[in-house]
Amino acid sequence: MSERGYVHGYSETESERLSVQAATLNELLYGDTSYPAGSLVLEAGCGTGAQTPVVTKNSPGAVIISVDISQKSLAAAKKRATAEGNAAEYLNCDIFGLPFPEDSFDHIFVCFVLEHLRDPVDALTALMRVLKPGGTITVIEGDHGSAFFHPESAAAKRNIGCLVKLQAEAGGDALIGRRLSPLLRSAGLDAVSVSPRMVYVDSSRPDLVEGFTRKTFTAMVEGVGEDAVSSGMMTKEEWDEGISALYRTAEEDGTFCYTFFKATGTRPV
Amino acid sequence: MSERGYVHGYSETESERLSVQAATLNELLYGDTSYPAGSLVLEAGCGTGAQTPVVTKNSPGAVIISVDISQKSLAAAKKRATAEGNAAEYLNCDIFGLPFPEDSFDHIFVCFVLEHLRDPVDALTALMRVLKPGGTITVIEGDHGSAFFHPESAAAKRNIGCLVKLQAEAGGDALIGRRLSPLLRSAGLDAVSVSPRMVYVDSSRPDLVEGFTRKTFTAMVEGVGEDAVSSGMMTKEEWDEGISALYRTAEEDGTFCYTFFKATGTRPV
Repeated sequence: MSERGYVHGYSETESERLSVQAATLNELLYGDTSYPAGSLVLEAGCGTGAQTPVVTKNSPGAVIISVDISQKSLAAAKKRATAEGNAAEYLNCDIFGLPFPEDSFDHIFVCFVLEHLRDPVDALTALMRVLKPGGTITVIEGDHGSAFFHPESAAAKRNIGCLVKLQAEAGGDALIGRRLSPLLRSAGLDAVSVSPRMVYVDSSRPDLVEGFTRKTFTAMVEGVGEDAVSSGMMTKEEWDEGISALYRTAEEDGTFCYTFFKATGTRPV
Repeated sequence: MSERGYVHGYSETESERLSVQAATLNELLYGDTSYPAGSLVLEAGCGTGAQTPVVTKNSPGAVIISVDISQKSLAAAKKRATAEGNAAEYLNCDIFGLPFPEDSFDHIFVCFVLEHLRDPVDALTALMRVLKPGGTITVIEGDHGSAFFHPESAAAKRNIGCLVKLQAEAGGDALIGRRLSPLLRSAGLDAVSVSPRMVYVDSSRPDLVEGFTRKTFTAMVEGVGEDAVSSGMMTKEEWDEGISALYRTAEEDGTFCYTFFKATGTRPV
């Protein structure tokens, strides 16, 4: 994936959105990931480092090396790391050209990356090369087809469909979460295990209404509005109707559901 | 809802399907429901009693009264109860005409019932009348719009859409799970809490592939095929294509996701 091909873009707004998402979902997505002291861990595709502080905090004695293809994202990640005092090392490189010898890492962590790649199995294979036999890969991805909400809205579904289509046109797959199990097995990983993590939001959880429904999911869909409209997928009016319907689900009687998938697999010994 | 209006019908096959579903989902849906010894519990809309044995087994000292509008279903429930030695009492009556005084029950349990009713809030109100102040109502429902799978299939989605439409035409709502929170709050229940229960199936869980993907969900969709085709919603060929796609998700590289919702609320004191 080139920098250009990243469907969500590299704006400041998007960087903030990713931070809100990480803060809201920390426990749900990362709470049960911690690496033993002394282990060497590769975070592949760290982006602006939204999730890196959680990974480092949960694994105080591990050495985390975070890499990303985008120099701009990596600069933001480093800035964040300095501000938050987290202990990762940062390196600008491509997953398909990792500057590490074979069998370097004890574990690999990949979050919201495979969804943007043209061939996620090739990426996993490239990662496995630098993973020690017996080491684990942890993969976290969303699945935009898992989103459903009340009130139901055909307009909002069309907006989400546009995001899925734009991501597909950029070579990615916004519906990748559901197929992590076959992907990891195709790459040759053993002991593949998938754990879905559903975010359920209703007005009894105002933090999630704000942090997830509004500022994570709806903000993400909103972020591709110009592309969807300018490419002729929808009219501006249709688009706005869908966005209004998504915000409507954040009201007192609304609900919102979305599922992330967390998969782990082991490199065969 | 009249007996006629029950979208799934009253066949032997359907009764078996409900038993397989209950056996597969027992722990996920009912494992955390148990009523204290000495409490009087109403199971409203027990159907053929597929879930009643689990409820009674988890609550050995409670008295469970199970009611249903269908004499035929109730006869099946009684037969099952005799065979399995469960301790519920059975009574043929309508939720809207319960022959109990006000404030009779300590708790009420309602599973896969509201989805078939024209006005679920009215049903909850009728149930609350016979519930003691401070007593709880537990509601379990599915949501067919929560289903997604790999490989993705537009044909299979159309089949599911037909089931949703047929259920709507019969006065029900197959997408009710997502709106349990606003429903229970509309009925005036306090302390409403909703817990989604996702069934995630891949080939590492052959029991769920068989018990859920094939014999619960796909069997349920298949069960309305004749109605969908005879009413002109789809051609026989289109229908069969969707069913094949659903069975396809049960193969080695397939996955299947579905979410049930379990809600509880308390009658205000």
